[in-house]
Amino acid sequence: MELSEIGKRAKSAKYEVALLDTETKNALLNQIADAIVADAQTIITQNAIDMENGRKNNMHPGLLDRLMLNEDRVEAIAEGLRQVAELPDPVGQVLETFTRPNQMVIEKVSVPMGVIGIIYESRPNVTPDAFGLCFKAGNAVILKGGSDCLYSNKAITDCIRKTLSENGHNPDMIQLIEATDRSVTAEFMKMKEYVDVLIPRGGAGLIRAVVENATIPVIETGTGNCHVYVDKEADMAKAIAIIMNAKTQRIGVCNACESLVVHSQIKDAFLPQLAKALQEKSVEIRADERAMEAMDGIDGIISATEEDFGKEYLDYILSVKTVDSVEEAIAHINKYNTGHSECIVTEDDKAAAKFKQQVDAACVYVNVSTRFTDGFEFGFGAEIGISTQKLHARGPMGLRELNSYKYTISGDGQIR
Amino acid sequence: MELSEIGKRAKSAKYEVALLDTETKNALLNQIADAIVADAQTIITQNAIDMENGRKNNMHPGLLDRLMLNEDRVEAIAEGLRQVAELPDPVGQVLETFTRPNQMVIEKVSVPMGVIGIIYESRPNVTPDAFGLCFKAGNAVILKGGSDCLYSNKAITDCIRKTLSENGHNPDMIQLIEATDRSVTAEFMKMKEYVDVLIPRGGAGLIRAVVENATIPVIETGTGNCHVYVDKEADMAKAIAIIMNAKTQRIGVCNACESLVVHSQIKDAFLPQLAKALQEKSVEIRADERAMEAMDGIDGIISATEEDFGKEYLDYILSVKTVDSVEEAIAHINKYNTGHSECIVTEDDKAAAKFKQQVDAACVYVNVSTRFTDGFEFGFGAEIGISTQKLHARGPMGLRELNSYKYTISGDGQIR
Repeated sequence: MELSEIGKRAKSAKYEVALLDTETKNALLNQIADAIVADAQTIITQNAIDMENGRKNNMHPGLLDRLMLNEDRVEAIAEGLRQVAELPDPVGQVLETFTRPNQMVIEKVSVPMGVIGIIYESRPNVTPDAFGLCFKAGNAVILKGGSDCLYSNKAITDCIRKTLSENGHNPDMIQLIEATDRSVTAEFMKMKEYVDVLIPRGGAGLIRAVVENATIPVIETGTGNCHVYVDKEADMAKAIAIIMNAKTQRIGVCNACESLVVHSQIKDAFLPQLAKALQEKSVEIRADERAMEAMDGIDGIISATEEDFGKEYLDYILSVKTVDSVEEAIAHINKYNTGHSECIVTEDDKAAAKFKQQVDAACVYVNVSTRFTDGFEFGFGAEIGISTQKLHARGPMGLRELNSYKYTISGDGQIR
Repeated sequence: MELSEIGKRAKSAKYEVALLDTETKNALLNQIADAIVADAQTIITQNAIDMENGRKNNMHPGLLDRLMLNEDRVEAIAEGLRQVAELPDPVGQVLETFTRPNQMVIEKVSVPMGVIGIIYESRPNVTPDAFGLCFKAGNAVILKGGSDCLYSNKAITDCIRKTLSENGHNPDMIQLIEATDRSVTAEFMKMKEYVDVLIPRGGAGLIRAVVENATIPVIETGTGNCHVYVDKEADMAKAIAIIMNAKTQRIGVCNACESLVVHSQIKDAFLPQLAKALQEKSVEIRADERAMEAMDGIDGIISATEEDFGKEYLDYILSVKTVDSVEEAIAHINKYNTGHSECIVTEDDKAAAKFKQQVDAACVYVNVSTRFTDGFEFGFGAEIGISTQKLHARGPMGLRELNSYKYTISGDGQIR
C-alpha cells in the first residue's frame, strides 16, 4: 500500500478511536490479548522466519534473543495488553476551568494526540506494547518496525486488526508499514499532513536519523550517558551499592550508569573498595589521572581519554572523573550528559539540593540508583519510552504523555 | 561572532538565568524597562535607519507601520516588560509528589527550557517581548530577527545587555544573531547542542522553513484557517455579531475567521442578512453553489473553488460552505483547518457538545468569537505565540508553556 494511503486511513481512524469510551477500549484490549494467545502458534511460526533470516545474516546472539518469541513471551505480550486495560483512561479529563471577566468559560481538556508514528528496531514486543498504549490513550498508530522483524510484526498486527474488525471497529487504528526500503522510512518522517507525533525507539543512530530528517514533531527518547557522583559526604556503602546496581544490574539499558564522578576528598578511601567490587563483576575502569593514583597498585585500570566521558558504553565499562566540589561535578555532568538520569550520593542536604536544582536532566536522583528511570518503577503502569528532550514530556512517558489538550470556550455571543 | 560561539555563550548563560530568584528577575525587568525609556532616542534613531531602508526597498505600507517605533511605542515596550514583572514566576513549582512502595519520593518540578531560539520577522517589539517572557521563565534566549529590522533589534538588545551587565549579570542571557545570511539561519535551526527549543514567529513561509529544516524541537505557531459554523439551531443575531467580529475586527491576525460553514436549513434565512452586513464592511464573499442560491439577487458574490476552503486569506474575504449536519461541518473543518480556532454558533447543547469534542483544534468555541485565542484574553498575562501543534503546548502560550519539568527522586540507598 502507498504510504499516503496509510496516512489517509490513519487520519480517518483517529477520529473513531478518539470517540471510543473507556469500557469499549478496555474490552477490546482484553479481546486482543485473548486473540494473541489463541494465535500464538501462527505468531511463533512467523517469528521463526525472522529468526531463520537473522541467523543467515549472522545477527548477534543478543539481538537474536530479543527477536525470539515463544509461548511464554506471547503470553507476556497478552498480559501487557491486559494490564493497559486496567490503567486509568487519560482522555477527556478537565485539567483546568476558568471563567473570564466577560463570562466566557474556558476549559482545558486532555485529548488524544491523533496519529502517532512509532519507528523502532528489532523487538517484536514493541508492536503490541506501542499499540496498546497509543490505543488506550485514544490514538491511531502507524508502526514502522525493523525489517529483521517483519514477519513477527505482521503476524501480531494482523491479529490485532482482525480482532478490531470482528468487533465492528476500524482496523486502521493500527497499521504496519511493510515496505523495508529506507526511502519509505524517510518519507514517513515527513508525513506531517497525516501524523501528529513521531516517537523513535531504538539505538542512537536511529534516533539521530529521525531527529535530523523528520518534519513531524518528534519525541526524542533513549540515549543515556548517566552519571553517579560520589560526594565527599557520601555514605560509602550506599555509594557502592548504587554504583554496582546502576552499572551492572543490566548493562544494555539507557538508565545504566556509564560514568562515575568522585570528589577528590573521598577518592582515596572510596575508589580502592569500589574497584574491587567492580572487578569482581568484570567491569573495566577507565580513570582520570587523580583517580588512577587513588587506585595505585590495583591491576587493570585504564587511563581515560576525554572521549570516554561522552560515551554511552552499554557495556561492562565505567569511566571515572575526579572533581574538587559539587559545583565542578554539576558542570562536568551538564557538559557530558544526555539529559537522562543523574545521581548524587551524599549525606549533605545542601549538596543534594544544589545537585537536584542545577543538574540538567529528566531525572535527578539523591541516594537512589539511576535504574529507576522507568514508567513501571515510577508507578505509571506502562511506558512508551524515556524522553530526553524538554518539549512536551521529560523522563518516563506513560499514557498521560500520549495525550495533548485542547481549550473549549463556551459563551453566549461574546465578541472583542 | 561565530554562531557556535553564540550557542556556547547562551548555554553558559542559561545556568545563570535559571538560578535567578523571582525578586531579582522582576527588579531586572523593571530596570530594563526604565533603560529602554531612557534610551528611547537612540532606539528611535536606529529604527529610522530600518525605516529608510524599508522605504528604499519599497516595503509595503502595512509592514512599514509595523516596523516603525516612536516614543509611544517605546513606552509600550517598556510597559510590556513591567507587566511581565508582575506575572507569577512559573519556575520551581512542585507539580506533583508521589512516594513509591520502596519509599523513594518522586517530585515533578517545573524548570526552564534552557536556551530558547526565536526566529521572527519585521516587528521590533518582538525582541523585548520575547526576551521578557523567556527571561521571566528562567531561559536564555537567542534571537534571529528579520534583516529589515536589524538596527532596531540591535539597539533594543544592546540596551537590555547593557542593563544586565551593569547589574552584575551575564549579558548573554539575550543574544541577537546579526548575520543576515540565510545560511546562518539554516545553521541556527540545527544547533541542537546549544538550543533546547525553537519558536518561529511570522508568516506561513517562515514557519514552514523552520519546521522543514530544524533539528531542534520546534513549537509551530500561527497559521489560522479558522471557521465559524452556523448551525440550524443558531441564534442568528449572535451568529452575525460573531462572524462580523471574527472576520473584520482585525483581518491580518491568525485568529480571524476565514471561512463560514452554514447549515442548509438556516442558509436561506441567514445568508442574505449576513451578506448585507459583510458587504457594508467590504468583505468579499466566495460561496459554494447552495450558498450562492441562498444569496440569489445579491450582487458581487463570487463562486468558491475547492482551493478557497484551505486558504488563510488574512484579508477582507470570506469563503462559505454549506453542509447538511453538524457531523458534516465537523468533517469539513477537520479536513481544511490548521488546528487553530473553530467556532459553532448554536443553541442546541448536543450539537455544541459534539462540535467541542470532535473538532480537532487548539481552541474550540461555542457562541464566542475566535478572536479570543490570545494569551491576554485567556488571562495568561502575556503570550509568546499560539501553538498549532499538539506536542508540548496547544493554543496561547504564556510563561508556564516556556517551562519544562524534571523529576527529582530522593531516597536512602534504593537499588533495583
